Amino acid sequence: VKVGILTIGNELLSGRVQDANASWIARQLSALDWQVSVILSVEDQEYAIRDALQYGLSCSDAMIVTGGLGPTADDITTAAVAKAFGRSLYTDEAVLAYLKEIFSSYGLTWTDNNAKQAAFPEGSEVIPNPVGTAAGFAIMHDGHVIAVIPGVPAEVKRMVPEGVIPLLRKRLPQTVQHVMSRTIKLFGLAEAGVDHAIADAGLKDLGIDVGFYPNFPENHLVLTSRENSMEAAATRIREAEKRVMDRLANYIFGFDQETIEGIVAAELTRRGLTLAVAESCTGGLITDRLTDVPGSSLFLDRGLVTYSNASKIELLGLPEDVLKAHGAVSEPTARWMAEAVRHRAGTSLGLSTTGVAGPSGGSPEKPVGTIFIALADGHQTYCRHFQFRWERRRIKIIAAEAGLMMLKRYLSGDNVHG
Amino acid sequence: VKVGILTIGNELLSGRVQDANASWIARQLSALDWQVSVILSVEDQEYAIRDALQYGLSCSDAMIVTGGLGPTADDITTAAVAKAFGRSLYTDEAVLAYLKEIFSSYGLTWTDNNAKQAAFPEGSEVIPNPVGTAAGFAIMHDGHVIAVIPGVPAEVKRMVPEGVIPLLRKRLPQTVQHVMSRTIKLFGLAEAGVDHAIADAGLKDLGIDVGFYPNFPENHLVLTSRENSMEAAATRIREAEKRVMDRLANYIFGFDQETIEGIVAAELTRRGLTLAVAESCTGGLITDRLTDVPGSSLFLDRGLVTYSNASKIELLGLPEDVLKAHGAVSEPTARWMAEAVRHRAGTSLGLSTTGVAGPSGGSPEKPVGTIFIALADGHQTYCRHFQFRWERRRIKIIAAEAGLMMLKRYLSGDNVHG
Repeated sequence: VKVGILTIGNELLSGRVQDANASWIARQLSALDWQVSVILSVEDQEYAIRDALQYGLSCSDAMIVTGGLGPTADDITTAAVAKAFGRSLYTDEAVLAYLKEIFSSYGLTWTDNNAKQAAFPEGSEVIPNPVGTAAGFAIMHDGHVIAVIPGVPAEVKRMVPEGVIPLLRKRLPQTVQHVMSRTIKLFGLAEAGVDHAIADAGLKDLGIDVGFYPNFPENHLVLTSRENSMEAAATRIREAEKRVMDRLANYIFGFDQETIEGIVAAELTRRGLTLAVAESCTGGLITDRLTDVPGSSLFLDRGLVTYSNASKIELLGLPEDVLKAHGAVSEPTARWMAEAVRHRAGTSLGLSTTGVAGPSGGSPEKPVGTIFIALADGHQTYCRHFQFRWERRRIKIIAAEAGLMMLKRYLSGDNVHG
Repeated sequence: VKVGILTIGNELLSGRVQDANASWIARQLSALDWQVSVILSVEDQEYAIRDALQYGLSCSDAMIVTGGLGPTADDITTAAVAKAFGRSLYTDEAVLAYLKEIFSSYGLTWTDNNAKQAAFPEGSEVIPNPVGTAAGFAIMHDGHVIAVIPGVPAEVKRMVPEGVIPLLRKRLPQTVQHVMSRTIKLFGLAEAGVDHAIADAGLKDLGIDVGFYPNFPENHLVLTSRENSMEAAATRIREAEKRVMDRLANYIFGFDQETIEGIVAAELTRRGLTLAVAESCTGGLITDRLTDVPGSSLFLDRGLVTYSNASKIELLGLPEDVLKAHGAVSEPTARWMAEAVRHRAGTSLGLSTTGVAGPSGGSPEKPVGTIFIALADGHQTYCRHFQFRWERRRIKIIAAEAGLMMLKRYLSGDNVHG
C-alpha cells in the first residue's frame, strides 16, 4: 500500500513550526510495511490543496491529510477537499449535536462559525476525535482513500492509529508483505569505503534493500527484507547480516538501538570493572557520553579534564621532563595519563586523550587533528595515534568516539589497535 | 518569488529521520519575504524525484533540492535531475581534481565511485561546498531555477545562504524589500512566559514579526522588520529590541550567533581570569561546552568529574562528615566542591554541580532533577538550588546551561541568583 501524507498550514511553509506530524505518521505506516510515497506541505490555500491532492494521488493509494479543520476563517481544508473532488458539503447532525453539547458542558457560548466543524463533503465517513472538537472524515475517489484529520499533534497521535489506519485497512485491498529491518552501526570507515566493501556481497540478489545513513562520526547501514512470511524475511536478514559481518566485522560496534557508551557501560557493569578517564582534547565529552547511561555511577569513578600542563602535573604526576621531551600531545603523555588516572583512582581501567583540536595549536609535526588515546589496565597500556581532519567540534566528537571504541574493543577481547 | 523545497531520502519517508532541513530553509526564505510554495519529500527513486520536480515547478519559480549527492549507489539525485530535464552528465574537472586532492591530503584511498561527486547535468552552475566533499549545482529550465545541494544539515546551513540564495537572487527577477532580523536568546523562562511578557510591547504595531523558536533549554525570539530602506528596518528593530529588553533583560543572555559558553569564554579571556570546574551530575558537559570555544585553554585550567564519593573526597578533600550529614547532593557539598576545585587549581573561579540526574537515585526529599550549582571566587561562594523536570539527558543539558548562565551573570556583575 502506498500512502501519501499532506500537511496543511501557513506556519509549516514559513518554517515557524517544524512539521512533526508527517514524520510521526510516516513511522506508523512504515511499521505496518506500508510505503510512504510522498510527504507534502502546502499553505491554507484552496488551489494549493487541490494541486497537492492531485499530485499525491497520482503516486498513492491513499492520502492522509492533516490541518485546517478548526472553526476560524483560515481553516479551509474541508471546503477545499470537497471542491477538489466536486462534492457539496452537508451538515452531520450527530456531530453538530455533539459539538453543542461540548460547548454547553464547558459553559462556552455557541457561535455559528463552530457549525463549520460539523460540515463534511458528501459521501464522507466521519472519523471521531476522542481528544478535541474537530472530527475528521474520509472520502473515496476512484478507488483511492482521502482521510482528513486535524493537525494538533496530540489529536493526530490518537486519530491515526484509532481511526485512519483501521479505515484504510477496511477500504484498501492490500498485499500483506512481511518486512524486517536491521541496522548495523560502524565506526572508522568512510561511507564510500563501506559501500565498496559490501559491493560483492550480493545483497541485492538476496532481495535486501541497503540504506546508508551517515551519523557523524558513525555510519549506519540499514538492511531491509520484504518477503511473504516473517520467517523468510528473518532468514534473508540473517544471511545478509552475516555477509556484512564477514566483510566489515572490524568496524561494526553494534546493532539497531545500541550505542558505544551503552555497550561499554553494560560490559563494565556486568564484569564489575571500574573506569577513570583523563581527557585533554576531548574536554569531558567522553565522560559526558558515559554518564548519559543510567547507572553509570556503578563503573565510572571519576573523570579529569586536564586541560593545562599544570593540571596534568598536579593531578596525574606527569613528569616535567616527559612534557619537555615529548610535549603534552604525545604518546608518552597519553600513556602516562591513562596509567596515572587508573592508579590514582584505584580503578580497573584508565582511559586518556590528548591532542590538537584546533583551530590553532597545530605544527607541521603535530597538525590540527593529531590525537593520542591510551588505555591502561594495570598490566598493559595500549596507545593509538590518530590523524583526523574536520574542525574543532567534530575533532572532539570523533576523538571521543575513538576512545570509547578502543574501550569497547578491549572489553570484547578484540585487537585494540583496530 | 515562490520557491519549492524538495528533500530526498528514504530515511525521511520511513519517518526514521525527521526532516529538519525543509523547515530551516523555509525560515531563511521567509525572512527574505520569499514565499515557500510547497515542501515535498520523496524517496531516492528516479521516478519519484522526476514527478516531485515537475509538480513543484508547476507552482514555483525555483526548487531547492537537498539530499542524495553522496558517493554511494543509493545516491541518485544528480542522475535523476539530469534525466528529468533531458540532460546528460559531464565531469567537472576542477571539482574532480579538488576531490582527489582532499583524498590525498587525508591519506585516503581514491576509489572510482567518488568521481560520481564530480558529475553534473550539462549546463550546471556548480555550488561550492565549504564544509564537505559533495558540491551542489543549479540548472535553469524554462526560466525556473533548480538548485541541488547535499542533505547534511551542517552543509545545508552553509550552502543555502552562501550559495543558493545569492544564485536565486542573480537568476530570478524579484522585488527588493529590505529585511532585517535579530535573534534574542533567553534562558530560564518558558515559551508561554516569554509570550506573556511581551504581549503589551506593541511589536505588531511597530511592523515587527515575532517568531518563537524553542531550542532546548533556551528560547529564541526572532524579530523581523521589513521596510523600504535598510535604515528604516534597523530603526524598527532597535526599538523592538529595546522593548523586549525592558521586559525580559533578566532572561536574555545573548543575540544572534552568540552562545553562553562563547560569551563566558570571551569575558574570562578579556579579564585574564581562570576557571576550574568540578562536575558531578553534569558528567563533563560543562567543560565539553567550554572547550568547544577555540582558545579555551587560555582560561580553563581543569575540570573534574567527581562521580564517586571517593573521588570527591580524594580530589577535593570533601570531609566525610559533610557527606554523612548532608549527602553528595546538597548545598554544603556543592559549595565545598566549588571552593576546593578553585583553591587546589589556583584559579580565579571555581564552578561545581551536584544533583540527581535519574532515572534512579531520587528520594522524596531530593527527587530526580534536584541540582545544586555553586560558584566560588575566593571571597564569596554563591550557591543555587534547582528542581528540574525532564529525563536524564535533558536534566544534564539544562543543569549545564544553568551553571554556565550563573558564571555569565557573575561576570556581567548581575545578581547570580537570577
